[in-house]
Amino acid sequence: MLTPLNVGIAGLGTVGAEVVRILAVNAGTISARAGRAITVKAVSARNRSKDRGVSFDGLTWYENAIDMASDANLDVVVELIGGSDGIAKNLVETALLHSKHVVTANKALVAHHGLGLAAAAEKSDVSLAYEAAVAGGIPIIKALREGLAANTIDGVHGILNGTCNYILTNMTESGRPFDEVLAEATALGYAELDPSFDVGGIDAAHKLAILASVAFGTEIDFASVYVEGIEHVSPVDIHFAKKLGYGIKLLGVAKRRADGIEQRVHPCMVPVDSPINHVSGVYNGVVVDGDAVDTTLYEGRGAGAGPTASAVIADIIDIARGANVPAFGVKTNCLKATKTVPMLDHIGPYYVRLMVVDEPGVFADIASCLKNNNVSMGSVLQQSRDPGEPVAVVMTVHETPEKAMVNALVEMAALDVVVERPIMIRIESFSD
Amino acid sequence: MLTPLNVGIAGLGTVGAEVVRILAVNAGTISARAGRAITVKAVSARNRSKDRGVSFDGLTWYENAIDMASDANLDVVVELIGGSDGIAKNLVETALLHSKHVVTANKALVAHHGLGLAAAAEKSDVSLAYEAAVAGGIPIIKALREGLAANTIDGVHGILNGTCNYILTNMTESGRPFDEVLAEATALGYAELDPSFDVGGIDAAHKLAILASVAFGTEIDFASVYVEGIEHVSPVDIHFAKKLGYGIKLLGVAKRRADGIEQRVHPCMVPVDSPINHVSGVYNGVVVDGDAVDTTLYEGRGAGAGPTASAVIADIIDIARGANVPAFGVKTNCLKATKTVPMLDHIGPYYVRLMVVDEPGVFADIASCLKNNNVSMGSVLQQSRDPGEPVAVVMTVHETPEKAMVNALVEMAALDVVVERPIMIRIESFSD
Repeated sequence: MLTPLNVGIAGLGTVGAEVVRILAVNAGTISARAGRAITVKAVSARNRSKDRGVSFDGLTWYENAIDMASDANLDVVVELIGGSDGIAKNLVETALLHSKHVVTANKALVAHHGLGLAAAAEKSDVSLAYEAAVAGGIPIIKALREGLAANTIDGVHGILNGTCNYILTNMTESGRPFDEVLAEATALGYAELDPSFDVGGIDAAHKLAILASVAFGTEIDFASVYVEGIEHVSPVDIHFAKKLGYGIKLLGVAKRRADGIEQRVHPCMVPVDSPINHVSGVYNGVVVDGDAVDTTLYEGRGAGAGPTASAVIADIIDIARGANVPAFGVKTNCLKATKTVPMLDHIGPYYVRLMVVDEPGVFADIASCLKNNNVSMGSVLQQSRDPGEPVAVVMTVHETPEKAMVNALVEMAALDVVVERPIMIRIESFSD
Repeated sequence: MLTPLNVGIAGLGTVGAEVVRILAVNAGTISARAGRAITVKAVSARNRSKDRGVSFDGLTWYENAIDMASDANLDVVVELIGGSDGIAKNLVETALLHSKHVVTANKALVAHHGLGLAAAAEKSDVSLAYEAAVAGGIPIIKALREGLAANTIDGVHGILNGTCNYILTNMTESGRPFDEVLAEATALGYAELDPSFDVGGIDAAHKLAILASVAFGTEIDFASVYVEGIEHVSPVDIHFAKKLGYGIKLLGVAKRRADGIEQRVHPCMVPVDSPINHVSGVYNGVVVDGDAVDTTLYEGRGAGAGPTASAVIADIIDIARGANVPAFGVKTNCLKATKTVPMLDHIGPYYVRLMVVDEPGVFADIASCLKNNNVSMGSVLQQSRDPGEPVAVVMTVHETPEKAMVNALVEMAALDVVVERPIMIRIESFSD
């Protein structure tokens, strides 16, 4: 058996403590699988006296994580501090510079600085591994980089944020509004105290940018991801979606097109019987379309100490086994520049809801807004009337460029009979 | 860039031809991912003149696959001949002896001889890779051996045979009987001309034995897998299953218990809203329960040229990248002997259907058979009566040892009022 692989862990929140715990309780199995012992030699966190439920006896304790990056006894530095910049970035850069393998769960860091960090890892001939950064315990990075490596990947889409999926699932089942369900999710600990990164779609966008880079072999480009959150999804639209045969999910979608790639995160209507619509509650699910393998789906817990620790340790075991896969699947000099298709050039079907004054000629006015922009109507639903109250007119439109849809919406909003801002939700049919 | 990895392919059916085709069409991407070119140097098949839709120009052609195993120009031998013994086994053994890496899609070979072949691969310090042998294009072996390597795996279950799943899905949707749907599946090419390995559960059992070995780190033991096929699943039981909130699937189930492991393939009732019940048609799905990651699900096409070629090439790319993971996740000397729990010691809920003469006291007789064996009844359904005809009595029973259930069934079958052989189908609740 080889010499042990020595690991230092920076950041001892619930994930860091769980990594230490799982490495201990499954030590026998893990060393058999890794072909060598995996030994935690050092840890770093601010508060040394806090009870984390596991023992750190005999380990070197660093007050300053950066000092750990040059510890000559360490082979691997695990970064669990978080944040796209600051100490996390400094630590990872320093560790790579000192030829330590780096394992991180930090999606923001990889989304913003992945290309530079991957290049630094290559230069030092070490691994930059981040399975835990995307979809928690689901080994989706491994699936894309290795398991599906024979394929030209045509698209990846998924439910990448468990908080949003929990909220939307709960709204769908209970009919309650967003604010109420979010408050409950926060009370239950399913949402952060500041939930804006989650419900605003940023967290999912970080993960999508990573998936797109690995899937398409392109330079990671988080800034080009189009992002909408779920704050404006309302029970009434969930109700109409059901009537039309759809569920509403926050999806991250990356698609290869002739003119570039689409990278977008936004609420989507998906067919009720599509596999992705069955991914419910805090679960994440990722669907990959490859030219040889066709469609595969991966589902599991996207967050939490156990699933995240599972992914972190899998990366450590890969390193112990001598794995040598580039961070984004190919060497950085083989990554292509990312040409992101602007959102206005997206083409797809749409759901539209208008609140209108119910008077003669309303429908003709709406129809002419669509006609003016060459938008072709699919089905129409009309809410039962309530005298004197605005009435909902719900329609789906066939595949149309987003630019045309947006122009039609602007025209509709300007109609006197339209009394609220029109609601538009994109439909994903997964047919192409 | 490193020197090319030179590959020989034995067996040029649809999968072999697709491997050659995909390696050609995705050559640029594949070599970028592998870090070196992957070059097919030799092929072997009996009929040289057959048009396979791809060019073999410039390749060494072996009439006899065994001769390929010692070709000094080859790094990897891909075995796509099939069959648990004979030429396939001879080829793989000879290739390993000559220190060639081996990639195979042959589940029967691995299920029967995996342990010896893994030992031979270790001795020669080469890979024995078989991702394509289980669940086609789904990278489930990689997920278990690598992606979930931090976990103690408590169980694996899945839909491992697309033919059976197609037939059961079709029976469920159409209400038609097994024979009729099988005949149609055969005509459509979804079932083999001799479908006995598929519908009899043997093919799924091969795959389950492999999954169990990788999941639990145990010596592969195909002979201990309990196997029942789907030949006796009838529309009436599918009908009652629906009424009780279940779907019927052919599952392979491997579970870790204190007294050994369960390895079984048989028709199961699964909750209609369970993720595995949503895996329909020719798709395969595998669910893994790990102590850290909790439950993850993997779904995709379990057969076909494209998905199988995807898995074969992924294995070749791993070899090109220098991956070095033991065949069953740990070195063969770390594999534990398999202690399989006898099927009669299985404990679970059951579905039972009796066809009875509808006369006073029938139910008391049935109930006493259960009571005699300490079997506790759950729900009961009774078919509407048809005067003079036998009537179906359907019941579920709570968790009970299979031994007790079988004894109760024997007693029930002996009752004068029971006019047909009692039907028993195991229920999987996935609660434990």
